[in-house]
Amino acid sequence: MTQMSEMQNAGLTHRLAEFIVGFAASGVTDESLREAERAFIDTIGVAIAASGDETMTRLLEALDTHASVGPARSLIGSPSRQPAQMALVNGTASHALDFDDVTEEIQGHPSTVLVPVALAVGEEIGAGGRDVLEAYLVGYHTEFLLASILDGPKHYALGWHATATLGVIGAAAASAYLYKLGVEQTVMALAISGTMAAGSRRNFGTMTKPLHAGLAASHGIEAAQLARAGFTASEVMLEAQYGFLGLFGLGTDLARADTISVPIHGLGEHKLSVKKYPACFNTHRTIDAVLDCGPLDAGDVERIEVTVQTAGLEPLIHHRPTTGLEAKFSLEYTAAAALFDGGVSLESFENAAVNRPDLQALLRKVSVTESPTPPTGSPGWHAGYSCVSVVMRDGNVVSSRRDQPRGHASAPLTDAELHEKFVDCVQYTTGDKQEQLLAALDNLRAVSDIRELPFPTMREGV
Amino acid sequence: MTQMSEMQNAGLTHRLAEFIVGFAASGVTDESLREAERAFIDTIGVAIAASGDETMTRLLEALDTHASVGPARSLIGSPSRQPAQMALVNGTASHALDFDDVTEEIQGHPSTVLVPVALAVGEEIGAGGRDVLEAYLVGYHTEFLLASILDGPKHYALGWHATATLGVIGAAAASAYLYKLGVEQTVMALAISGTMAAGSRRNFGTMTKPLHAGLAASHGIEAAQLARAGFTASEVMLEAQYGFLGLFGLGTDLARADTISVPIHGLGEHKLSVKKYPACFNTHRTIDAVLDCGPLDAGDVERIEVTVQTAGLEPLIHHRPTTGLEAKFSLEYTAAAALFDGGVSLESFENAAVNRPDLQALLRKVSVTESPTPPTGSPGWHAGYSCVSVVMRDGNVVSSRRDQPRGHASAPLTDAELHEKFVDCVQYTTGDKQEQLLAALDNLRAVSDIRELPFPTMREGV
Repeated sequence: MTQMSEMQNAGLTHRLAEFIVGFAASGVTDESLREAERAFIDTIGVAIAASGDETMTRLLEALDTHASVGPARSLIGSPSRQPAQMALVNGTASHALDFDDVTEEIQGHPSTVLVPVALAVGEEIGAGGRDVLEAYLVGYHTEFLLASILDGPKHYALGWHATATLGVIGAAAASAYLYKLGVEQTVMALAISGTMAAGSRRNFGTMTKPLHAGLAASHGIEAAQLARAGFTASEVMLEAQYGFLGLFGLGTDLARADTISVPIHGLGEHKLSVKKYPACFNTHRTIDAVLDCGPLDAGDVERIEVTVQTAGLEPLIHHRPTTGLEAKFSLEYTAAAALFDGGVSLESFENAAVNRPDLQALLRKVSVTESPTPPTGSPGWHAGYSCVSVVMRDGNVVSSRRDQPRGHASAPLTDAELHEKFVDCVQYTTGDKQEQLLAALDNLRAVSDIRELPFPTMREGV
Repeated sequence: MTQMSEMQNAGLTHRLAEFIVGFAASGVTDESLREAERAFIDTIGVAIAASGDETMTRLLEALDTHASVGPARSLIGSPSRQPAQMALVNGTASHALDFDDVTEEIQGHPSTVLVPVALAVGEEIGAGGRDVLEAYLVGYHTEFLLASILDGPKHYALGWHATATLGVIGAAAASAYLYKLGVEQTVMALAISGTMAAGSRRNFGTMTKPLHAGLAASHGIEAAQLARAGFTASEVMLEAQYGFLGLFGLGTDLARADTISVPIHGLGEHKLSVKKYPACFNTHRTIDAVLDCGPLDAGDVERIEVTVQTAGLEPLIHHRPTTGLEAKFSLEYTAAAALFDGGVSLESFENAAVNRPDLQALLRKVSVTESPTPPTGSPGWHAGYSCVSVVMRDGNVVSSRRDQPRGHASAPLTDAELHEKFVDCVQYTTGDKQEQLLAALDNLRAVSDIRELPFPTMREGV
């Protein structure tokens, strides 16, 4: 290959491809397999919960104009499709409620892209549970590696939606692994996916945000299929001038791409953050801090002051939300709803719930501020913090501070809590298969053919 | 809509959508219709010429894994498909030989994206010739408008492939026009396509470069289909922070987006540059300058010195090409081939032709340099120049300079020359329909249903 003759060391794209091809032999730990199983449980649950969501209805209507029947099954009760198209459906569904897992390491959502890819390609080829778990881990490693070079926070600050821009390359890596491509074709799969990377944060709070996840999943599979058919692309697409890292990580030190060891870390060494609330993860500390203030009567509240870390408000672009999608990116709404309802659930983000006059009045009493130093407690913090002060009409002030929300990687949900969330999510499906599905996913590595996973059917009218 | 209440004037996305919806009533000139007809003739010709190209064989093999039968016809003899998938095929085919038209205004290829989109959606809805010409013009206006705000040269210098990044939005605009979407849904089509924009110049000289055109065409149609189904996206996607112009035109003065009038100019006011040679347009001045030196015996040549304008070498990244695709982006090869063969044609870019030992020896005698001031002739130049000096073994020097290549917008091909190129391009198809097709395209505005255009069938084995 070109870069082998031109350079003493193989470039990043090539070294990553070698890692992917040799992944099964590299010694996958039980801990990482378990973390991947938890990702499948959570992602499949939140996708099923989105079955009746308007985002999915609209997407399926649009897809009807170019549907392609195939072997990959839907998580939301729609017809089976070819893998790339089904990954578009399941990927969008997994992210539609913004209830899926997230990691600080890639500043985005890995599983909403990788689980649908592993399922769709896995069903096409009749993979076992262990295969799709490994494919998931390959994709995760790939995204984490790129995020480590890219300067993730800057990438995100520019306006890119890392879930999608990194996700499409992770999706190609996972697909290439399942298709058992060799090193050269895996290089091409990575290179083709790198040129497909896209997704603007401007669309947060609209149906197009979850669409990004579906597109990344779908395009990653297509990249691997093109590579499998012998399609060519630049062998140094990730690391060279005009390539992925240059375009998406302006100011990134590309020399780091030459020296970084592959892999650096993977899942198992660090954990996923699993969401307890179906809203942007940056709202979770504040929701928990409000709940920690204990039950309060909204009618007695004068104002609510929320202070978060520098840049903590960046994704929370909707200050006067009127739709459920906007409300997921509104710190004012999520704080108000937590206080008013005593909790935040899927129901909190129905359009009618957002537009309750009492809620709209209360969210106007919420002021949000960023500060590098928390106004209360220790001046130090790690990934973020939220300080909430509820000022009552009688002059009393109730305050609370949260640095890590429940479900964060540093305080993971227990298996029992994860199962409980799954059961909540699948409540709209017919009941008989729910327990079988959860039991199968809970030991996915032992499933011999994932086409036998008992995906639920939907109740009438959902 | 949100921005109407927040701003005194509607934002760029909204104003562009209003222009698109009202385009038919805006007074389309004969001159612009004729330029669009010429674009259809040239684009369909070069797509047909790519029928047997390896890029297309590989793409069709990959597509077989997720094919969707539909009403849109192929230009290269493959089965009919749903519109978005057929636009992927025809869009890639139109750009596969790098023989399609180009404009300096968008620093890229407009027609390889827009013609396949207009044909695919037009066949789906049974549009007339005039409709698809108007859709093409709508797409062209859209791309030109964005390029005018973006600072096209900087966009390109960052590493983006403008053919695709601007093309996908032009494709969405053209599709929205044919689908007769209203203003609000056209806003959404533009916004969804803006979040799909992608394509890195790193992949120049590989099969993925033409793929970019196909993907842009395909994704633009999908964006319009999603909008038609009621999918939502940001209403200010093009102009607002984190939106298209911010992400793809770093340093762009976004205030210009608020004040620019829509449209500014369109086709007719300026012309397309039509390629006489199937290689990167930046090689054409040099090819013409070499040919202007008259017939020379390669065996007598000591060296060939080529000087071009500043940044003129930027796309020409292959200095020692060994494939036809690389050779299209090699100034050394194209200069050598022009001298050796006395001309440059489709045959010059077959892999075997590139690897002729005499050619490989001659291209190593070519030195290429950039200079802000031409070494010979007037110090002034407009879009570019090429000065060629052929130094012979006997000490003689033959020199020539070209500022505008044949076919450039400032010296367009005559209709007769355009027809001649078309006939060359379709030589591999069965002969009986060629003349009918050319005659129909030459007066496309009079065709009542484009599904009746007699696309050629391929000869056996092509």
